[in-house]
Amino acid sequence: MTDLNPSRMAMVPFVSVHDMMRIVNGDGVAETIAAIADRIEADFLRWEQFDKTPRVAAHSEEGVIELMPTSDGERYGFKYVNGHPANMGRGFQTVTAFGVLARVDNGYPILLSEMTVLTALRTAAASVVAARHLAPKDAKVMAMIGNGAQCEFQALAFHHVLGIEEVRLYDIDPAATSKAARNLAETDLRVVSCKTAEDAITGAQIITTCTADKKQATILTDNMVGTGVHLNAIGGDCPGKTELHRDILLRSDIFVEFPPQTRVEGEIQQLDADHPVTELWRVIAGKAEGRTSTSQITLFDSVGFATEDFSALCHVHEAALRTGFYLDLDMLADPDDPRDLFGMVARADT
Amino acid sequence: MTDLNPSRMAMVPFVSVHDMMRIVNGDGVAETIAAIADRIEADFLRWEQFDKTPRVAAHSEEGVIELMPTSDGERYGFKYVNGHPANMGRGFQTVTAFGVLARVDNGYPILLSEMTVLTALRTAAASVVAARHLAPKDAKVMAMIGNGAQCEFQALAFHHVLGIEEVRLYDIDPAATSKAARNLAETDLRVVSCKTAEDAITGAQIITTCTADKKQATILTDNMVGTGVHLNAIGGDCPGKTELHRDILLRSDIFVEFPPQTRVEGEIQQLDADHPVTELWRVIAGKAEGRTSTSQITLFDSVGFATEDFSALCHVHEAALRTGFYLDLDMLADPDDPRDLFGMVARADT
Repeated sequence: MTDLNPSRMAMVPFVSVHDMMRIVNGDGVAETIAAIADRIEADFLRWEQFDKTPRVAAHSEEGVIELMPTSDGERYGFKYVNGHPANMGRGFQTVTAFGVLARVDNGYPILLSEMTVLTALRTAAASVVAARHLAPKDAKVMAMIGNGAQCEFQALAFHHVLGIEEVRLYDIDPAATSKAARNLAETDLRVVSCKTAEDAITGAQIITTCTADKKQATILTDNMVGTGVHLNAIGGDCPGKTELHRDILLRSDIFVEFPPQTRVEGEIQQLDADHPVTELWRVIAGKAEGRTSTSQITLFDSVGFATEDFSALCHVHEAALRTGFYLDLDMLADPDDPRDLFGMVARADT
Repeated sequence: MTDLNPSRMAMVPFVSVHDMMRIVNGDGVAETIAAIADRIEADFLRWEQFDKTPRVAAHSEEGVIELMPTSDGERYGFKYVNGHPANMGRGFQTVTAFGVLARVDNGYPILLSEMTVLTALRTAAASVVAARHLAPKDAKVMAMIGNGAQCEFQALAFHHVLGIEEVRLYDIDPAATSKAARNLAETDLRVVSCKTAEDAITGAQIITTCTADKKQATILTDNMVGTGVHLNAIGGDCPGKTELHRDILLRSDIFVEFPPQTRVEGEIQQLDADHPVTELWRVIAGKAEGRTSTSQITLFDSVGFATEDFSALCHVHEAALRTGFYLDLDMLADPDDPRDLFGMVARADT
């Protein structure tokens, strides 16, 4: 007699948006970002174990849908993510994402998770990992240019992990700045809302740019960037979308995640294909130098890479099993006799 | 006040294995395969509208995990599928799969579905689509070499769609043949269990090979294949895995799904890279000839292509909404203000 109840093996734990919020609020937003940052850093340290490939993108007039797979030989992960700049005006999210973690040895998925919230956490986590190695040691003030969906996560992460005490907010839309200031009011960060980008960067040792326009923009011009700062450039992350004036890049030491992807998607798409950049993992592993002087401008040209999503999915997998905040999905067919798929269907009590 | 209930837009319909079986048994297995075959054929007719790319594979010692994306400009679909030959001996499925359908205009997923059962259905559907255009018109007898998970779906599909009256089963493992014969006993197919491959192909106008060994095997030798037959070669579907002796290929007119993928994965990996093959969609569209004589050997060198999964997902999407056999998953974050993702998390009632 065929057992018609799906076995444990057929079940895939699913972390919904609601469960993700339960996990994150239970552990704390800043604490979760810090934990993911530690995982990202540990995974960067074993960078060479990962199967790395540029994301697989399907472009359309309205936007892009991407698959970002990677594997460390033991686990396989991928993220589905879209980017549709016009969505916001139509009442949809610009970016939505979900991801899967699987066992390499048998190919079975072991986690399905929402990743819209998780991507915001992992992006902030990757930023603080880079800043930990590149920012001036005594940085206390961060400018945040662009106060959209990513802004507060960045602010909290830099406060909690790097000891940033003041964030200076600027957005072309004052409503975005108000929203961010309101959300950050309950933290013990000093929040300063600014009317211009120039005002925002005043006294900042770290400048984070995180704007959404899908075009070649110039959020920062060359004369705005003084010596010694660390630039955390988040928003230039797809072909044709940049935030920094090219001259700034020429004065900076540039650090990237995965050069084949960043050359196409990052700020450095403005530079020659052989312009020298340093892979962040090499700095973390002690194979390359990070910040070497107080006058140096360091630039983390962040586009988001599959290994960072992998690190984040591994964190969520552990947190979901620890907290029980997940739902088992009957996602894998599991007939008693693997060759009797037809019999399983035919005899199902439907 | 933020509405904490996930909105309709945040919900993605999920078809579990149980729901898939409810849908398939409700409509009928053969009828479902026939409906998917019609969709595959209709989608082959508009082949040039599809964004086509070879699958993205992550190989390991134990097997492979693949992502198979495609898009017709309006919808985007992808399948996750693993292939782990050693799984069966360890109590796992050799192949498991799931897939997603999304809107291209806003990037939102509109369906998550199990695809282990669905892949079996779509593989049988693709086979009958090819046979409809390539097999001898009066074919009544089919040999089935390999009586594993795919076998009964093929038999039913050829019976229902092409009018095959007799299937002749052979497998190196008699238990597999018994299983298939038992499952097919309730149909009005004439089922003949054979002790050798030679016996199975006696009098068959169509020979379907569907074995699982991950190696260069020779299920059929040259002298076993007479003139006029149609070969439906399913099992040779990844690098290093073939079923037919090379000499058979040299005597056959070969039809394939997507040459860049089939050259690497199909039977024709045994041939020179420029050996002439015909794309199946061109036959369906009247741009190339299919069977032109009764003495011709036609070979459908099937490896499974992303557009076929897309066609199958579109069928399931419609069937799920029609029957209500699905579960809404809270998979997409949907804050009232798209820029206030942080506020959504911070104010969640968790």
